Amino acid sequence: MNFLRRRLSDSSFIANLPNGYMTDLQRPDPPPPPPPSAAAPQTSTSAPAAPATGTPLAPAAPPASERRPQPAPSTGSGFFSSITNVVKQTAASAGLVEQSPALAPKKFKVLLVIDEPLHEWAKLFRGKKIQGEYDIRVEQAEFSEINLVAHASGNCSVDMQVIRNGTRVVRSFKPDFVLVRQHAFSMTQNEDFRNLIIGLHYAGIPSVNSLESIYNLCDKPWAFAQLISTYKKLGPEQFPLIEQTFYPNYKDMISMPTFPVVVKIGHAHSGMGKVKVDNHSDFQDIASVVAITQTYATTEPFIDAKYDIRVQKIGNDYKAYMRTSISGNWKSNTGSAMLEQVAMTDK
Amino acid sequence: MNFLRRRLSDSSFIANLPNGYMTDLQRPDPPPPPPPSAAAPQTSTSAPAAPATGTPLAPAAPPASERRPQPAPSTGSGFFSSITNVVKQTAASAGLVEQSPALAPKKFKVLLVIDEPLHEWAKLFRGKKIQGEYDIRVEQAEFSEINLVAHASGNCSVDMQVIRNGTRVVRSFKPDFVLVRQHAFSMTQNEDFRNLIIGLHYAGIPSVNSLESIYNLCDKPWAFAQLISTYKKLGPEQFPLIEQTFYPNYKDMISMPTFPVVVKIGHAHSGMGKVKVDNHSDFQDIASVVAITQTYATTEPFIDAKYDIRVQKIGNDYKAYMRTSISGNWKSNTGSAMLEQVAMTDK
Amino acid sequence: MNFLRRRLSDSSFIANLPNGYMTDLQRPDPPPPPPPSAAAPQTSTSAPAAPATGTPLAPAAPPASERRPQPAPSTGSGFFSSITNVVKQTAASAGLVEQSPALAPKKFKVLLVIDEPLHEWAKLFRGKKIQGEYDIRVEQAEFSEINLVAHASGNCSVDMQVIRNGTRVVRSFKPDFVLVRQHAFSMTQNEDFRNLIIGLHYAGIPSVNSLESIYNLCDKPWAFAQLISTYKKLGPEQFPLIEQTFYPNYKDMISMPTFPVVVKIGHAHSGMGKVKVDNHSDFQDIASVVAITQTYATTEPFIDAKYDIRVQKIGNDYKAYMRTSISGNWKSNTGSAMLEQVAMTDK
Amino acid sequence: MNFLRRRLSDSSFIANLPNGYMTDLQRPDPPPPPPPSAAAPQTSTSAPAAPATGTPLAPAAPPASERRPQPAPSTGSGFFSSITNVVKQTAASAGLVEQSPALAPKKFKVLLVIDEPLHEWAKLFRGKKIQGEYDIRVEQAEFSEINLVAHASGNCSVDMQVIRNGTRVVRSFKPDFVLVRQHAFSMTQNEDFRNLIIGLHYAGIPSVNSLESIYNLCDKPWAFAQLISTYKKLGPEQFPLIEQTFYPNYKDMISMPTFPVVVKIGHAHSGMGKVKVDNHSDFQDIASVVAITQTYATTEPFIDAKYDIRVQKIGNDYKAYMRTSISGNWKSNTGSAMLEQVAMTDK
Repeated sequence: MNFLRRRLSDSSFIANLPNGYMTDLQRPDPPPPPPPSAAAPQTSTSAPAAPATGTPLAPAAPPASERRPQPAPSTGSGFFSSITNVVKQTAASAGLVEQSPALAPKKFKVLLVIDEPLHEWAKLFRGKKIQGEYDIRVEQAEFSEINLVAHASGNCSVDMQVIRNGTRVVRSFKPDFVLVRQHAFSMTQNEDFRNLIIGLHYAGIPSVNSLESIYNLCDKPWAFAQLISTYKKLGPEQFPLIEQTFYPNYKDMISMPTFPVVVKIGHAHSGMGKVKVDNHSDFQDIASVVAITQTYATTEPFIDAKYDIRVQKIGNDYKAYMRTSISGNWKSNTGSAMLEQVAMTDK
Repeated sequence: MNFLRRRLSDSSFIANLPNGYMTDLQRPDPPPPPPPSAAAPQTSTSAPAAPATGTPLAPAAPPASERRPQPAPSTGSGFFSSITNVVKQTAASAGLVEQSPALAPKKFKVLLVIDEPLHEWAKLFRGKKIQGEYDIRVEQAEFSEINLVAHASGNCSVDMQVIRNGTRVVRSFKPDFVLVRQHAFSMTQNEDFRNLIIGLHYAGIPSVNSLESIYNLCDKPWAFAQLISTYKKLGPEQFPLIEQTFYPNYKDMISMPTFPVVVKIGHAHSGMGKVKVDNHSDFQDIASVVAITQTYATTEPFIDAKYDIRVQKIGNDYKAYMRTSISGNWKSNTGSAMLEQVAMTDK
Repeated sequence: MNFLRRRLSDSSFIANLPNGYMTDLQRPDPPPPPPPSAAAPQTSTSAPAAPATGTPLAPAAPPASERRPQPAPSTGSGFFSSITNVVKQTAASAGLVEQSPALAPKKFKVLLVIDEPLHEWAKLFRGKKIQGEYDIRVEQAEFSEINLVAHASGNCSVDMQVIRNGTRVVRSFKPDFVLVRQHAFSMTQNEDFRNLIIGLHYAGIPSVNSLESIYNLCDKPWAFAQLISTYKKLGPEQFPLIEQTFYPNYKDMISMPTFPVVVKIGHAHSGMGKVKVDNHSDFQDIASVVAITQTYATTEPFIDAKYDIRVQKIGNDYKAYMRTSISGNWKSNTGSAMLEQVAMTDK
Repeated sequence: MNFLRRRLSDSSFIANLPNGYMTDLQRPDPPPPPPPSAAAPQTSTSAPAAPATGTPLAPAAPPASERRPQPAPSTGSGFFSSITNVVKQTAASAGLVEQSPALAPKKFKVLLVIDEPLHEWAKLFRGKKIQGEYDIRVEQAEFSEINLVAHASGNCSVDMQVIRNGTRVVRSFKPDFVLVRQHAFSMTQNEDFRNLIIGLHYAGIPSVNSLESIYNLCDKPWAFAQLISTYKKLGPEQFPLIEQTFYPNYKDMISMPTFPVVVKIGHAHSGMGKVKVDNHSDFQDIASVVAITQTYATTEPFIDAKYDIRVQKIGNDYKAYMRTSISGNWKSNTGSAMLEQVAMTDK
């Protein structure tokens, strides 16, 4: 997800975009949603009886499997329909009916997008409908601009204080869905928003990515442990993995086999907390700094990269990009970069 | 798990133990393990070919399902055999064979127990064997006494510095299994051991409870969010749940419907960070304190409890206990208490 | 200093201001500064030879003593002339001459005001001169908007990113003086700016209040310890002091003599972290919360206050105000309040 | 003070000690003090005039006034008598008389030594008396083993839980004096004891070093700012100072003039948090790590040191030692070292 974000924010690069990329995202005609006749009953009947089927919150359940039982989402397998489906499933659990009993039903869904103002998500969703009848009302803010109260009963109120065009906008609303486009946690200053992730999950608000995955990706070595598990299952041929060592703290950072080595300290993004170390003496220095960070560190062999390969999968579309650093820094994810599409498959 | 711990540490209470409780734990003859003839082949053949089946690390997969493919674990369905099975599955992934190729195989498994010295786990496992042939070597330490280095390759070295009988004991070993009997995290001072949980998971060491569950139980409202999800699926009849409200921080702690209310601040244990609040003015005071804690809080109606009910499930054995607070404090999990067995089922 | 700030920000209260208050602050004619003929030589000659006399940074030296050697600051003993003097002394140590050697000398002094944008300090200083010849250029920002680099050599560069009228203003400058109007530290979220205080002191920038006092006031019990010391010297008659008890952490918060008692947790402002406790059971609850804050706490008898008395001393002018809480909260420094001048002395 | 500590703990080095060093410390008869005839007047007359000479508590403590009532402290003005004087001065303020009114007076003073058990301070003080009549009762513990409650009234109770010879010793007492031999604060894990320093100061307990100096030395750049101030006063000839730059955080760590440079991150000891950086690319890496530490950093030119010079001043005795690192690490204060006395003056 980082990839998309970086790309969209790198306006100087828009010109070099792979063909059709932006139009993919902005195509005027989103895939026709599931026919209202099918969707509507599901929404209304599943409310009292069968929220279990549609629950988007079951920890491990992949969204893919949830989509299967739906009647013919025919063409709609792109990004919008993915949200469509989840929002649809949410109608019941979100307890929307309670809010407007016997009144004209609310004709829109509230989509909370957590992102910088630079990316105008409202534009992307303008004129779109989901479930054939619901408008999408986009509320966009950064993590630092929102707060919430969540009730076990399912009610959730999100407060938002944003400055738009120099004036402060204060809003309070109940999101039907959340799209998280910022890092929920970094060990750098003022970047810990895990409490909001917990709150959104507590409120049962569906999300892309799932809130479980966001929460469990807030310690990179924790996520890497899952890669190791897969590596052990599939073997190095099918699932090659970089050699890496984990230290819970600085205390056992004593010896190192081969240099240069990359030391990654704590959980951060965009090259923060990462050092290339060339010899044992420098490694000792870095260990003494890990002590001050009071967190964990990993080490892995330095790989002199010419470029990154980034693979994108949306629905059944795969694309691969080469990302070539322009800054010259060994951290290929730091500074500006050039993206070039190198492969594309539409299975 | 807290329950067992409290009980065992409350020596004055041992006399009042439900019949057969201690003998359950200490019964001299653990259920006969799976016959060696069955276990041994599995260990050796699964190593190169199919570690996938036996993986004890798959996030959501319950241990129960993993046990199924095993030939006839007949009688062994108790506590020991549970460990037995997992340890057995670990043999391959742990890469033990590598360590002593062509030599006489190691005839024991190393069980790391993370617990206070008060509870002598070595005694409980003395003379036991698993998989019919492996002794259990217990290494016991508190979280604060251990450190580790974990390699993606599966190697893991745990260091331990404990003071036993006034002398410092330093040990380094590779655990085959870990039994976690202490809280991995509390927001009170010097009680954050999540980095060790990450390290044990990184090393792929099997654990009771699973390391995933331990990690995901390090924010109580995060765990409560799962209860809410279940509540929404099953409904209040089948899965009643206390009304609770979550605040990511103090800022929205403004109004409160009904008093008295219990405010639980952050993630802690044994009654820490919990306050009963009787009126709105006191609630405002507490909100001002939550600001200092810089963490989340929940509120729930105060329930004047006569006792707790604690349900224990080991294998197919269920037991229920009444836990009556002796201290008189409204926090029934604070101070000493009396446990009394009130029900028992052996399905 | 809190007092002035609160007042100025309480615009609804401006009407009720004690007579002459605002004009005091804004009086068009600040006391005539020391004659330029005297000040100028001092500035130029003291640079190489005698910075010692003028140093505003000597930890214990009271500003008063520093002013003594100056020739006849005759009438100027108010707020502006205080700044005047310090800025004057700073000219040399700040190494301003270096920056424009042989050129026309800089004809202004840069005053960094750390305050909310609400208070427009540039207005207050418009048209004023110090030392008879220097304009005052006001740079105003909040702590959260500034950063700096300080060199032992005395060079210091302050960076400032503020949003004014909806556009981002970025500035870099070298302050000659700093006026701190915000709290440098609170244990609530994102309120720790002690690193900037250290940096300003490191750069040798003079300040009201002195940076030493600001630093040493970042733990209220540390400041209270000085009051205790004075109390012991002067005795309860001359220096009455509230009974207070200090706990470094929650652990010894066991017994309490008399209720109601006020518990103040950590270091914060405006009523944050403060709780009134009525009985022993509630006190135990609060102690369990102090554990989560991981900081110190104090207890003192609850005093049912009708109003605060605030005494203001500027030069030889003393004024006393009654501050009556409007909110009805027992914390008389929370929420809005009414200020009424009750005494005034011009010694 | 670090010096003495390192020496005493480096037992392998005892053999190489400068002649007479240990006997200096342990000599049964403290160095003959300045003749009583000289000392007594000094004590009494210096009170109003020159508190600087005799007071080890300088900044705020008005020992001067407390000292007046004392009758002729006859003998000792060395290290012991220094304590003697302060403890003596404490008698009144500590309110000892209250505790045993009309009873036989307590015939000892309680000296709290905060140090590792390795150094047995009780031995050093065995058989010593202060003020000619008071025994010294030494209570020794590490910071991590003590807690306290301090009252504004001057009462203070220190609790101590130490493990001695394998058994837990719990004590509660009221110290008359404290000798701090451990660092009160480091940004490494579990090393923040500033709350205890605040508590001891709150209780008004005299200390070597003074508690004010300990508190103000808990941010090294804050202390360095004082050196800069002195440097500006005295000039580079009389007070040479290393060039150093202070960054409140990582954000402005952008350019660096000359390499190699030493980056010191946060506040720590014994080489923790310190890195030698050889080029701009590595400097960028380190800046990215400072971001994770969330604290300040300083940079200074790397000096390839052959040895440290350590100067010791006790009373009027000066000694200088060469400290040659044995480890070969560029951090000369890391690992073992050789100390050699190179100069001695007894003014």
